[in-house]
Amino acid sequence: MNNFEFWAPTKIVFGQGQIAQLKALVPAGARVLMTYGLGSIKNNGVYDQVLSALSGHKVVEFGGITPNPDYDHMMKALPLITEHQLDFILSVGGGSVIDGTKFLAAAACAQADPWALVTSGGDLIDKAMPHGAVLTLPATGTEMNRWSVLSRRSMDEKRDFGHPSLFLQFAVMDPATTLTLPQKQIANGIVDAFVHVVEQYVTYPIDAPLQARQAEAVLLTLIEQGRRILKDPKSYEARANFMWAATAALNGLIEAGTTSDWTTHKIGHELTALYGLDHAETLAVVLPAVFKVLRVQKYDKLMQYGRNVWGLNHLGGDALADAAIQATEDFFVEVGVKVRLSDYGIASDNFSRIADKIEANGALPLSERKNVGKAEIVKILEACY
Amino acid sequence: MNNFEFWAPTKIVFGQGQIAQLKALVPAGARVLMTYGLGSIKNNGVYDQVLSALSGHKVVEFGGITPNPDYDHMMKALPLITEHQLDFILSVGGGSVIDGTKFLAAAACAQADPWALVTSGGDLIDKAMPHGAVLTLPATGTEMNRWSVLSRRSMDEKRDFGHPSLFLQFAVMDPATTLTLPQKQIANGIVDAFVHVVEQYVTYPIDAPLQARQAEAVLLTLIEQGRRILKDPKSYEARANFMWAATAALNGLIEAGTTSDWTTHKIGHELTALYGLDHAETLAVVLPAVFKVLRVQKYDKLMQYGRNVWGLNHLGGDALADAAIQATEDFFVEVGVKVRLSDYGIASDNFSRIADKIEANGALPLSERKNVGKAEIVKILEACY
Repeated sequence: MNNFEFWAPTKIVFGQGQIAQLKALVPAGARVLMTYGLGSIKNNGVYDQVLSALSGHKVVEFGGITPNPDYDHMMKALPLITEHQLDFILSVGGGSVIDGTKFLAAAACAQADPWALVTSGGDLIDKAMPHGAVLTLPATGTEMNRWSVLSRRSMDEKRDFGHPSLFLQFAVMDPATTLTLPQKQIANGIVDAFVHVVEQYVTYPIDAPLQARQAEAVLLTLIEQGRRILKDPKSYEARANFMWAATAALNGLIEAGTTSDWTTHKIGHELTALYGLDHAETLAVVLPAVFKVLRVQKYDKLMQYGRNVWGLNHLGGDALADAAIQATEDFFVEVGVKVRLSDYGIASDNFSRIADKIEANGALPLSERKNVGKAEIVKILEACY
Repeated sequence: MNNFEFWAPTKIVFGQGQIAQLKALVPAGARVLMTYGLGSIKNNGVYDQVLSALSGHKVVEFGGITPNPDYDHMMKALPLITEHQLDFILSVGGGSVIDGTKFLAAAACAQADPWALVTSGGDLIDKAMPHGAVLTLPATGTEMNRWSVLSRRSMDEKRDFGHPSLFLQFAVMDPATTLTLPQKQIANGIVDAFVHVVEQYVTYPIDAPLQARQAEAVLLTLIEQGRRILKDPKSYEARANFMWAATAALNGLIEAGTTSDWTTHKIGHELTALYGLDHAETLAVVLPAVFKVLRVQKYDKLMQYGRNVWGLNHLGGDALADAAIQATEDFFVEVGVKVRLSDYGIASDNFSRIADKIEANGALPLSERKNVGKAEIVKILEACY
């Protein structure tokens, strides 16, 4: 096992009716900036529940945060914090709302140029405003980790960054709030959480069997509960199990003492920035291609994944690896996310410009072996067809 | 899934050579009370590593903390804190050193009678001195949770209590420090961690499949790595995997959204208080008896446990339940912990006095069904022969 630090200080408050707990969770007397997305919370009762729990607090609202939250939009919230002397931020929504708000919490305290907080990968962050969240869309895992992803559409950029001050103080998670989500968002969430685990698990063998079993536990639960939601979309229990599994997919435990890849995410971010694909769509497209191109270095873990997650015990060797990759693609398609760039009407492109962009961001080389450069990125993109 | 809160804010710093990180982890300028046990840290290099990392800090030492840390002994440390104006406590040792020190951290801030902090189950605690630990013995899981167990030998008492202020700020875990432990302490640690998981897992079916898989992940790892340590006592990797599994056994994740039993622990505490058995010895004796007496209410989970942990897929029904109980006993004996009170030379006793004592502590009724009263406790104790 590698040496590691594990720290996840966010308090999780999980279950039906728990939004009312905001009364105790938001500091007494706090003047609150409440951030949210495109307004679905006003139709599903969440907005009313939050405002009711915050009665007695000064609350200023900032909505309109889109999927792949945008730097220029989030910057518009900064003056509100000063103008109204706000001292706490509560995000209400999915991972995009939380991620945009994490940036805001850091930007509100920063001396540096706010965009540099992002492009430094978080290195230039030293503190953030106190912030918490009500999560309404299981997918990204941001509710329990120090990471955020921000886009800047005006520059075709999508970048991830992290800092300990970006941990939420608390995350309220009521699975009932997810019952009204469009099926496409559930599908995307399943794929997002699934790929988070795989990027930390299908790497190379490390003597860390607990973490491997914990990864398999999350994957098996995502498959089982993802299918259950498709079959029984009204099941609270299925939503609850999926929601908690999505948090477990990226709370740091699976990666503790091991290694991780993130090639799929880094390439995926560029596909979102360039073509506007949903985050999960990019992952569903790129992950199988990464499996194919990096098959040799991932061979042993692909075998383990095929056996322990897909139950392919009757196969061995290359047939097992092939079947594991196929099972992954089939599952993504089954839940409703297509797995080829051509499925999204994207014609073959000059892929080296994507590789150039990742290089310009200082992210190369990629993969658990740090051996994926521009040539390999082009190969992976070619395998996305 | 039941509603739940999950909060585990302790920073884990894990791996070889990590004791040196104390330099950054202990607050600058802190005046430190360093607590430890019976002196093994002076023979295995840990004491020197800690003092070296704390150079520049005022350090006052308090040793002599025994297994099942004693209230009267810990109370002797209180005046040192005032006298030397200490503001941070660092415990260096196993779960007993940490548990005794958790009590001390709370007692140093309390208006109430210190023993009442304990007997209230922690309800009378409202804050604690900042405290961290260097863990040298994997077993109890106290390094990542809010719980503590304190004994008061002069009153034959052993009581557990908990409070959020009892979370350590950090836990440094260097598996190399466990290489010099006597095999008996490793055996006890394996049994302790194993029973922690089982008390949260073999209850009744709850629709929380991730947590069940996470429980199975820890149990399978404890079995695998426990046997590996017996076979290859010098393996750092085996120690590391065992150490991290023991933390995972009681960090709150397995219990989140589910239920738990703790009958074995409550009865076990009394056996330690009365007969001086090691904590793990009491668990190894009582758990199989609890399985036997509560077999009907635990039937479904006993089946799941037998199949998923012991691989008893060829059996079913009563034969499967019997085999799961037998496999548990065999494993405890295999690692070196005996499973009958008679093995420890303890003659049949007037068991109703033990049941009376648990009742007097206000702990009844026990079990996940809250249906274990005095009569059932006597039955369980009779089944410990």
